[in-house]
Amino acid sequence: MATKVTPLSGFPELLPAERLLELHFLDTIREVFELHGFTPIETRAVEPVERLLGQGGDADKEIYGLRRLAADDEDKGAELGLHFDLTVPFARYVLEHAGKLDFPFRRYQIQKVWRGERPQQGRFREFTQADIDVVDVGALAPHFEAEMPLVIAEVFSRLPVGEFHIQVNNRKITEGFYRGLGLTDNAGTLRIVDKLDKIGAANVRALLVESGATEEQAAGCLALAEIRSDDTSFVDQVRALGVDHPVLDEGLAELAAVIETGRSVAPGVLVADLRIARGLDYYTGTVYETQLVGGEAWGSVCSGGRYDSLASDGRTTYPGVGISIGVSRLVHLLIDNRGLTTSRRTPAAVLVAVTDEESRPHSTAVATALRARGIPCEVAPKADRFGKQIRYADRRGIPYVWFPGGRDDSGERPDQVKDIRSGEQVEADPSTWVCPDADLRPAVVTLTR
Amino acid sequence: MATKVTPLSGFPELLPAERLLELHFLDTIREVFELHGFTPIETRAVEPVERLLGQGGDADKEIYGLRRLAADDEDKGAELGLHFDLTVPFARYVLEHAGKLDFPFRRYQIQKVWRGERPQQGRFREFTQADIDVVDVGALAPHFEAEMPLVIAEVFSRLPVGEFHIQVNNRKITEGFYRGLGLTDNAGTLRIVDKLDKIGAANVRALLVESGATEEQAAGCLALAEIRSDDTSFVDQVRALGVDHPVLDEGLAELAAVIETGRSVAPGVLVADLRIARGLDYYTGTVYETQLVGGEAWGSVCSGGRYDSLASDGRTTYPGVGISIGVSRLVHLLIDNRGLTTSRRTPAAVLVAVTDEESRPHSTAVATALRARGIPCEVAPKADRFGKQIRYADRRGIPYVWFPGGRDDSGERPDQVKDIRSGEQVEADPSTWVCPDADLRPAVVTLTR
Repeated sequence: MATKVTPLSGFPELLPAERLLELHFLDTIREVFELHGFTPIETRAVEPVERLLGQGGDADKEIYGLRRLAADDEDKGAELGLHFDLTVPFARYVLEHAGKLDFPFRRYQIQKVWRGERPQQGRFREFTQADIDVVDVGALAPHFEAEMPLVIAEVFSRLPVGEFHIQVNNRKITEGFYRGLGLTDNAGTLRIVDKLDKIGAANVRALLVESGATEEQAAGCLALAEIRSDDTSFVDQVRALGVDHPVLDEGLAELAAVIETGRSVAPGVLVADLRIARGLDYYTGTVYETQLVGGEAWGSVCSGGRYDSLASDGRTTYPGVGISIGVSRLVHLLIDNRGLTTSRRTPAAVLVAVTDEESRPHSTAVATALRARGIPCEVAPKADRFGKQIRYADRRGIPYVWFPGGRDDSGERPDQVKDIRSGEQVEADPSTWVCPDADLRPAVVTLTR
Repeated sequence: MATKVTPLSGFPELLPAERLLELHFLDTIREVFELHGFTPIETRAVEPVERLLGQGGDADKEIYGLRRLAADDEDKGAELGLHFDLTVPFARYVLEHAGKLDFPFRRYQIQKVWRGERPQQGRFREFTQADIDVVDVGALAPHFEAEMPLVIAEVFSRLPVGEFHIQVNNRKITEGFYRGLGLTDNAGTLRIVDKLDKIGAANVRALLVESGATEEQAAGCLALAEIRSDDTSFVDQVRALGVDHPVLDEGLAELAAVIETGRSVAPGVLVADLRIARGLDYYTGTVYETQLVGGEAWGSVCSGGRYDSLASDGRTTYPGVGISIGVSRLVHLLIDNRGLTTSRRTPAAVLVAVTDEESRPHSTAVATALRARGIPCEVAPKADRFGKQIRYADRRGIPYVWFPGGRDDSGERPDQVKDIRSGEQVEADPSTWVCPDADLRPAVVTLTR
């Protein structure tokens, strides 16, 4: 096959060492999710297009539709599209399997999603998300809204991501405030205010006025969006703006509860930030975004919120709350901008050398003995001279080279193992040797810049 | 969203307990692959359609093409399709990144693939494959052909799959034999003989004659396909058919070497079976299929082979050999037909009870202490009476319920933990309690039938 090979913009691929780093992130995420009792599910990559449509923002035009190159009569059914997040498919999964699930249902889900948006820094057309959600039948206890960002805080505390803030807002605050101001197009207003970071206050003000708001109403919206606190003092700041509405009261109480719990469990991690909007329409209460300090230009690396009516079959509603780590964005950000790196290019900790091709079975037996004891190893692909085999290991970051012994004219020679980083070489038996690297998994070097 | 929820034929989804089983399979597969020094990579889900086309069998018409619902000028490039295996994308990855890879390059890859074929037992439109491959530059040492099925044998020996056979053939045997017989359309002949299991010997004979073979040539093809041995005696059986060709000699020697190594490392696992063809055109030497004894109707659960020219940029060729576990097929087969099951529906080993909503922070602190020591747990979602909280744990297969103590009128009460399977309840401290279940991962029950 001599077709030209070219990268596809927006479909990034990692080299082996980078993939080992990504796997370290994925393993850590999964471990923390499981420690918190989230159960794994996976949904199919496709949904009927009609289920994907109408979730707000640019989602609709970013959907990838599917068609078989040779479609036949069987495919007369619904048109299929690749999912663009894991929340919409999860809501559908809950509806489809409700009778067989235990509620409140806590699940995690780590999968690829696809969005046909314009590729740019941190924005890909194919990327991996890691989500947790809790859904219940009819009503969902508010303590879950405080729990979600705290699980994420634990994940991030175990990863070399540097300093981060999880920003929390509540859609009821913006909605109640806008209604209290006398504005009626809640979603439209929110969408304009959401552009604040991109286009600045003056332009947002102009757009709000253009959409029918008075100067005073526009100023109020902007004043609300400026409020930010890592304790519950945001409540008084909102009150000071003199706007009153029962939905606003509800939102302030809910957000205060989340921030209060956050302060007691993981101080300094959660921030009430009344500018946070989230693009998708299905959120109805608490919303989250996460920024790495110094990585703000990449956008949020972990987002989510509460949705009260995403999963409903018309009779029963399953309200939920969830949060999603943008794993691809996070890992690419750290590799590209922070020098995230590892010394390993393979999981193998030992290269078993091969003296000559006739003795390959002997080297294979050594490898089998090491593997039986959980030590990952590779048998040298070729009986080159040992210097070349050591270079083979060195190039891949394999720390140890094993030299099988054997019988020669001078009698029985024992096996030896060399730490090629220090040069130290000792006699060893594959059935008893203890690998000095306690953690055989690739060592992740924390950020180099 | 009140749209009707219906399953999509060919896109199976697992319930939580089933997904825990699948993850046990995936974790075991990954562990063995890493023990053997295969390095992880992941390729994008899409390739330009022209790269996917022309790989033989029904692959072409099973490709899913992609189009953005709102395509714009940026998308004027190559048409994209979802990959139907992991070998074609891996070959492309090798070509694209060759300058940054270490050869021979050993990689594993566990991903979804998509084939728009007619859904039926064990055949899905979306499924997970777990592949290992080794590629080298210019030439590939033959010992890798013996290694691939032995890694799989180790994977399967750690999984509750029952008895299995890995069948091995070599395309040079069929090609050399057909040419020695005087038949010229090697691929066409192979494709007809490959139908043997489906349509029987008489129909294969008729098709061969129809395609231009004499009765004697057709009889020769059928006689070759009948040969099967778990040692190298197949060589003499082929010789006895009196056909001679240098390519046949090469194939017989290569297959004999694979079977010989297999017998010495994992006796009874490999079988030389000269009927094995594999549907895809890119194989050029050794080919593998794997059947579970008693599960033959489901087809091969692990297949692969050697490909000499799949990865070539016109100047350099990267020959490779690989094998791929059909994880979805395997897991569905075992769940549906063999009663593969687990008692767990969540990774949580402990449910921390909540005495009343005011003391939820105390229960959360207990959970945090347990998690810090690697014990997965969940805090009860609601301060129901304890009987109800125990039932909550029981329904999910959570083996332990933790009752936080506290201070009441009678003084300080210690925490207690109950094994709800045995009913035994003991005093415990979350910072020292040792969970008696050594392996906190969901216990996989071996096949129940």
